[in-house]
Amino acid sequence: MQDLKDMAMKLEKTETGFTVSINGRTILDHSTSAPCIFAGIGEERMDMYRGNFEIEDYVIERGRLAHAEIDGNRIALSERSGQKPRLVLTIENGAIEFEASDPLINRLWIRIPADHDEHVWGGGEQMSYFDMRGRRFPLWTSEPGVGRDQTSEITFKSNVKDRAGGDYFNTNYPQPTYVSSALYAMHVETSAYSVFDFRRKAFHEIEVWAIPERIEFFAAPTFVELVELLSDRFGRQPPLPEWVYNGAIIGLKDGENSFRRLQSMRDAGVEVSALWCEDWVGLRKTSFGARLFWDWQVNEERYPDLRRRIAELRDDGIRFLGYVNPYLCVDGPLFEIAEKAGYFATDAAGTTALVDFGEFDCGVVDFTNPAAAEWFAEDIIGKKMLDYGLSGWMADFGEYLPIDVHLSNGIDAKLMHNQWPTLWAEVNAKAVASRSQTGEALFFMRAGFTGVQKHCPLLWGGDQSVDFSRHDGLVTVICAALSSGLLGNAYHHSDIGGYTSLFGNVRTPELLMRWAEMAAFTPVMRSHEGNRPRENVQIDQDPQVLSHFARMTRIYKHLAPYLKSLSGEAVARGLPVQRPLFLHYQDDRETYAIQDSYLYGPDMLVAPIWEAAQADRVVYLPQGERWVHAWTGETFAGGEKVQIAAPLGQPPVFYRAGCANEALFSGLRGL
Amino acid sequence: MQDLKDMAMKLEKTETGFTVSINGRTILDHSTSAPCIFAGIGEERMDMYRGNFEIEDYVIERGRLAHAEIDGNRIALSERSGQKPRLVLTIENGAIEFEASDPLINRLWIRIPADHDEHVWGGGEQMSYFDMRGRRFPLWTSEPGVGRDQTSEITFKSNVKDRAGGDYFNTNYPQPTYVSSALYAMHVETSAYSVFDFRRKAFHEIEVWAIPERIEFFAAPTFVELVELLSDRFGRQPPLPEWVYNGAIIGLKDGENSFRRLQSMRDAGVEVSALWCEDWVGLRKTSFGARLFWDWQVNEERYPDLRRRIAELRDDGIRFLGYVNPYLCVDGPLFEIAEKAGYFATDAAGTTALVDFGEFDCGVVDFTNPAAAEWFAEDIIGKKMLDYGLSGWMADFGEYLPIDVHLSNGIDAKLMHNQWPTLWAEVNAKAVASRSQTGEALFFMRAGFTGVQKHCPLLWGGDQSVDFSRHDGLVTVICAALSSGLLGNAYHHSDIGGYTSLFGNVRTPELLMRWAEMAAFTPVMRSHEGNRPRENVQIDQDPQVLSHFARMTRIYKHLAPYLKSLSGEAVARGLPVQRPLFLHYQDDRETYAIQDSYLYGPDMLVAPIWEAAQADRVVYLPQGERWVHAWTGETFAGGEKVQIAAPLGQPPVFYRAGCANEALFSGLRGL
Repeated sequence: MQDLKDMAMKLEKTETGFTVSINGRTILDHSTSAPCIFAGIGEERMDMYRGNFEIEDYVIERGRLAHAEIDGNRIALSERSGQKPRLVLTIENGAIEFEASDPLINRLWIRIPADHDEHVWGGGEQMSYFDMRGRRFPLWTSEPGVGRDQTSEITFKSNVKDRAGGDYFNTNYPQPTYVSSALYAMHVETSAYSVFDFRRKAFHEIEVWAIPERIEFFAAPTFVELVELLSDRFGRQPPLPEWVYNGAIIGLKDGENSFRRLQSMRDAGVEVSALWCEDWVGLRKTSFGARLFWDWQVNEERYPDLRRRIAELRDDGIRFLGYVNPYLCVDGPLFEIAEKAGYFATDAAGTTALVDFGEFDCGVVDFTNPAAAEWFAEDIIGKKMLDYGLSGWMADFGEYLPIDVHLSNGIDAKLMHNQWPTLWAEVNAKAVASRSQTGEALFFMRAGFTGVQKHCPLLWGGDQSVDFSRHDGLVTVICAALSSGLLGNAYHHSDIGGYTSLFGNVRTPELLMRWAEMAAFTPVMRSHEGNRPRENVQIDQDPQVLSHFARMTRIYKHLAPYLKSLSGEAVARGLPVQRPLFLHYQDDRETYAIQDSYLYGPDMLVAPIWEAAQADRVVYLPQGERWVHAWTGETFAGGEKVQIAAPLGQPPVFYRAGCANEALFSGLRGL
Repeated sequence: MQDLKDMAMKLEKTETGFTVSINGRTILDHSTSAPCIFAGIGEERMDMYRGNFEIEDYVIERGRLAHAEIDGNRIALSERSGQKPRLVLTIENGAIEFEASDPLINRLWIRIPADHDEHVWGGGEQMSYFDMRGRRFPLWTSEPGVGRDQTSEITFKSNVKDRAGGDYFNTNYPQPTYVSSALYAMHVETSAYSVFDFRRKAFHEIEVWAIPERIEFFAAPTFVELVELLSDRFGRQPPLPEWVYNGAIIGLKDGENSFRRLQSMRDAGVEVSALWCEDWVGLRKTSFGARLFWDWQVNEERYPDLRRRIAELRDDGIRFLGYVNPYLCVDGPLFEIAEKAGYFATDAAGTTALVDFGEFDCGVVDFTNPAAAEWFAEDIIGKKMLDYGLSGWMADFGEYLPIDVHLSNGIDAKLMHNQWPTLWAEVNAKAVASRSQTGEALFFMRAGFTGVQKHCPLLWGGDQSVDFSRHDGLVTVICAALSSGLLGNAYHHSDIGGYTSLFGNVRTPELLMRWAEMAAFTPVMRSHEGNRPRENVQIDQDPQVLSHFARMTRIYKHLAPYLKSLSGEAVARGLPVQRPLFLHYQDDRETYAIQDSYLYGPDMLVAPIWEAAQADRVVYLPQGERWVHAWTGETFAGGEKVQIAAPLGQPPVFYRAGCANEALFSGLRGL
């Protein structure tokens, strides 16, 4: 890694302003006639309905901070000479620190010079567009939307029914950080609502609904080193648990019957690492169908004698996983305990704020109250989950902090909203650490924000639709893995077969198989029955799907030694398991725009089939290598597009000829 | 009418600013800490697709013009004391004149104090909301949209197919003028894109994408006088032609067959004033179906010997109407003439700008070129239409001026776009005047803008969907008549049965009948076969509809003496024929929110049935009168809601007991 001193930011005076650069790259360019910072006052309107937000700003004032006075590493900005400074920047430790002299300012716009052919990636976990250039990205944790495409019937219907259709930028995990193809990265340290606007040719505009603490810049000669720097900055995940390598995590929510079905899948040759039953807490009947009972402890009616069965499974080499989220339903026993102890966020009147989740209300455990966080970690996750024998869980939600609740730390909920996923991750991580199970118990989250990297050992891509759609189907999971991976989230995975089945949209066997084919080349294979299990085909209900799935779990298991080495790289260097092609081929600009194939570690290239009824696929192979097709052994020169046959069971996968793992990879052809 | 001197605006200094009032109503209230004017710089993005616009603004700067220096009737505004003025206001002749000292300013925001319970009406011809309070209205002439409701399937499909779904504020005829329930009116004299934002409790915010020439205020003790003032300001229509009173204008576009169908309708008892054949110019086949041939002269293949037939009709007391719009198709003979003469708007290279209207291109006749306007008025409308024997026409379009064409007068097309409908109206009016047929030849327009009142003798409500939908059906025509009527457009009418039939949405006989029932109580009854005549039921295809329609034409004809008196009021005083209830009942605030019933002149109240399958309707009857139900003679006291039976043929209609026309009205019961 390069010496950090080389990266020091340089502040230079110019005729009527200044420039700031890092590693020779100009990141601020200010003059009186073309200022780089605007400040103002806005009044936002924010409406939440079940995790979906309508947000609009009324900008009352936006002024150019045109006049700069520079004193050492301090820049005092005002609208004109003679005016008292409204904002002071300090260039320090690779960052620009902000200090508002005018307490009325609650909006800031910062322009960062852009090249015409520049690409930008990141923004947290983005589902639709890996390269964000040309578009505008609000960064606010929320439901990601259903369909996420204003031209799709599903999005339209979801909007009408629940305001839930979403758009390309909606994500459970936003983060105000981007990586530029100009070999620098930028991060805004704030939890306020912000917007990255990459639509302009000459500059990127960063909008923040607050004075941010600071804006950090990172630069390195290579993308790999840049990603390492970001991982150092945001936190590092532990290694994958050893037990994960044994096969797939099988998601079933069928009560006791789940055990029988698991066994029959094993009998069919499925390699299994764990059984995941989100319904371990029991069910609630609603008009929408069965929902989980949001009180985080075993329901022995639905799972009699579960503790014993978990132990038996474990003896058999299989772990048991559950489910938890940061709410407690009013009709569960834990609610009363939390309310008595004052652990819930409150409304203006000081009483427990209730959130409607669709025919049942919940309290929001206030994680800014250390006692509440500790109680959730110790009494719920510690005692009722880990001590009970769970080896992991879906740590669901985190995006729904209502913006009008009152919190123990006294900070405006609008400023805590984005931070909530990170606090939620921390509660989970602390519980795991308290049992010394870090790197052993595995929880997975869909929500995130800056810093979630430090606490969350595994992302899952959220709730895709059960289809091949461009903005909410299988392909979006690749974009999610690549964008989050660049920002220090080494491990990503998804629900095999997708989750959301609405308005008659149901899984096809083909979708299930294509999804499993991709998942075999990700850190974790995990199946999900989806939101409407009975209306959608399940892996164990179709012999072709089952046998295909079994083979994919064998492929996953076969690659475990390689995956383990990738986990080692993640721990040591912060490199993600799934990587954009440009990460290792930065001289090949052809790779910069690719978001539907990825490097699985340094040696393997995976190009999933993400559309229906494809007999083959065109894949770009990076320059400077010879690439071996995993299923035929045929070799191709890099630097070209190849059209490759891709029948079911043979997703386009290539590895580097001559790589250290060539022998292992060539073994795929016997599976 | 009150003395205009009473209305003089008053400018008064305050501690750190000023107030401006009219008739005691404060219309500007400025202080350093709460300025009423903001100025700035924006960069707009405007995309047009077939008359539908996507418009977005990037506000680079918006500053408070907080510092005011007052000198006589001049107010010099700047951001702070000591700064050179950026904007100078002059209070003069009931208006605020604007002069920008800073040429960079291209955005202005003006706050006008609002009462909590204030209503505002106007904005041109609004289809969805008569009272605009609580909503935001961009004012830009465009297609009005199909469905105009983001929750409707038709709007969704129209958006996906053609970006054509529209929203509540889209209108062919915007106008930056409103009438306040506080008994004043405001008008912004500008043709720039503007926005009226009535969403805030304490003030209305007016946004203009230019420095307007001036903002005019009007005040009067009564709404009636206020409307008279506005009609004086914007122009006055001539009386309705005498021939109109003879019955309905029958719209048929069936070539020669139209004459046969007209006769059979007359045989069935339909009272007819005119036959309207928009296809008199011939047809063009496209993949969307038959379209008119946009070259404005008779097509004798489709209408053999038309001149003789028009004369025969006229001998029979029936007029003939045609169709024209401001474009010329490239494959018609008029195009060549216009192009040779340099009458078309051009592109940047100076060649004729072509506009795609769906499988055929057209030139845009440049009405800012006096020679082109004169040619269109004289050679086309004069010679080929009026001299040929036409007594009127639909003067279609006017909303499509592309924002990137070059015009003869050198003004930016973005500034001429809104003015185009008025220029188009003027061309038509001049042609009519040149043959001394003002008040005799009748053309009708859907597009409009400030000043269209002066030239256009009759509005038509544009292209409703053939249904009862809230935002694009029958009911929207009432809102259109009331809003435009307040601003000096005395005559309004609509396509009986609606126009737009898409995505399987077709007319029902019930819709046709309910529409005809309403139209009998408007200035002009006119039928339209719609955009897809063969897929939609026509008046002459259903015996019940035909007989119902015939009766409605008799009702219309019966009321002609009354209508004629209303036309007299329009000519003399500028009062609209269709009036909101509050116009004559301003002390009854219950009437302020009503937009689905109207006064038909001072003596009659009409409450059309605008939903399907209604056996009755609840109608509010204003205070201080006794109201006679037109069909039963039953009398009701005002100040209450009554539920009234409304079978087909008996739309809820009431008249004032004891009014001058009582005998005439009571005659309705015999029809």
